[in-house]
Amino acid sequence: MLSFMSAKIRLYVDHPLGEGQTVPLSREQAHYLFGVMRLGPGGQVLLFNGRDGEWRAEITGAGKREGAAQVLERTRPLQAPPDLWLLFAPIKKARTDFIVEKAAEMGAARILPVQTEFTNAERIRQDRLQAHAIEAAEQCGGTFVPPVAELQKLDAVLADWPAGRRLMFCDEAAAGQARTLSDVLAGEPWAVLIGPEGGFSPAERGRLLDLDFVHAVSLGPRILRADTAAVAALTLWQQALGDWR
Amino acid sequence: MLSFMSAKIRLYVDHPLGEGQTVPLSREQAHYLFGVMRLGPGGQVLLFNGRDGEWRAEITGAGKREGAAQVLERTRPLQAPPDLWLLFAPIKKARTDFIVEKAAEMGAARILPVQTEFTNAERIRQDRLQAHAIEAAEQCGGTFVPPVAELQKLDAVLADWPAGRRLMFCDEAAAGQARTLSDVLAGEPWAVLIGPEGGFSPAERGRLLDLDFVHAVSLGPRILRADTAAVAALTLWQQALGDWR
Repeated sequence: MLSFMSAKIRLYVDHPLGEGQTVPLSREQAHYLFGVMRLGPGGQVLLFNGRDGEWRAEITGAGKREGAAQVLERTRPLQAPPDLWLLFAPIKKARTDFIVEKAAEMGAARILPVQTEFTNAERIRQDRLQAHAIEAAEQCGGTFVPPVAELQKLDAVLADWPAGRRLMFCDEAAAGQARTLSDVLAGEPWAVLIGPEGGFSPAERGRLLDLDFVHAVSLGPRILRADTAAVAALTLWQQALGDWR
Repeated sequence: MLSFMSAKIRLYVDHPLGEGQTVPLSREQAHYLFGVMRLGPGGQVLLFNGRDGEWRAEITGAGKREGAAQVLERTRPLQAPPDLWLLFAPIKKARTDFIVEKAAEMGAARILPVQTEFTNAERIRQDRLQAHAIEAAEQCGGTFVPPVAELQKLDAVLADWPAGRRLMFCDEAAAGQARTLSDVLAGEPWAVLIGPEGGFSPAERGRLLDLDFVHAVSLGPRILRADTAAVAALTLWQQALGDWR
């Protein structure tokens, strides 16, 4: 499904992009472009920074530890996702990485790891998770990169919940009680909440179901791993309320 | 989301299950139960075979290389999925394993790896993929295990397509043309087709779109990796036509 991958190398840069700009390339990018991919001066790449769309650029400097590219022209505008956050409880390392990768692919605008009562993880590597979101955008043609927040307690996030944002609560215990998202609520800011292995505690469930911005949604009669549940929940939301409609 | 995992060990056995049955345990199961989990005679496990539901059983023999359990009572009936096949083009090893795992979790009834024009894989390890489907059912509380077929050419599968089965074709090129599944078609046999990296060839697309059992469906405006696309497509189908309704 990645038809353009072989055709063009796409790189994320943390630098403004505009016609004529010169963009420095990092040590890792220099190694990849000049060492692995054998590009040199005159070679072309696609650059994006999550804000200014995607731009064609030409390599102008190719050193061992650094490089530079000059921006030529914009190839695509920024494709911003809908205003959807993903809240998830970190699980085992590989599957946490996966959730972040999938959230970026599926068009989440912000990724918030949250600590629930049954969450084992005490900390996350925010920098590594952010790198996974960037890599997903590089690989999948995205022009936007969702920021990954530091780990916060779910209670604190709920206590400080922004006015007007709705929360789709993927409630394992709601299996069987089919509830669907009404498209009356399209165009509003939303968030999706995925629980950890072990689900939510009864106290957490009770609190969530009492909040007026919370909409409990079932993900079917089977038990899903958290990474599967994240993709399924984002699919339901995108199809009912987001930009898949 | 796996609340019962710590509570009970669940094992797949390729053996009939019924009250009073004695079930032999394999060398791997003996190692896991007696070596890793430190169970012994009198310990209880849950067994399922994909046909007879889930049963509580008691360990009656615990050797180094083998074991036995006696079946006590049925804890859950067989939960058969809807009549939905997943056809997918094998990709890199880890992601192919993932697609099979996700298909089992999401309730596919049969998994068919297919070779398309842009599929690199010449062969698959059917036995390893089948083991992944079993493991997904063990972990996620499933009582059904979808059979994984040997690799076949997509052309041959289409030429021999069973009468009355519809095919949801996840067409990357359909992004933007929203088509939805009409629930008039619920209750019929279906299949979902996911392409490889690189998508389908123009000839394949043309052929698929000409077939009267094919329904092209868009998975949104972003490019998805094949494993993400599989979960998203199964979600759309389950929500519109399957047992999530």
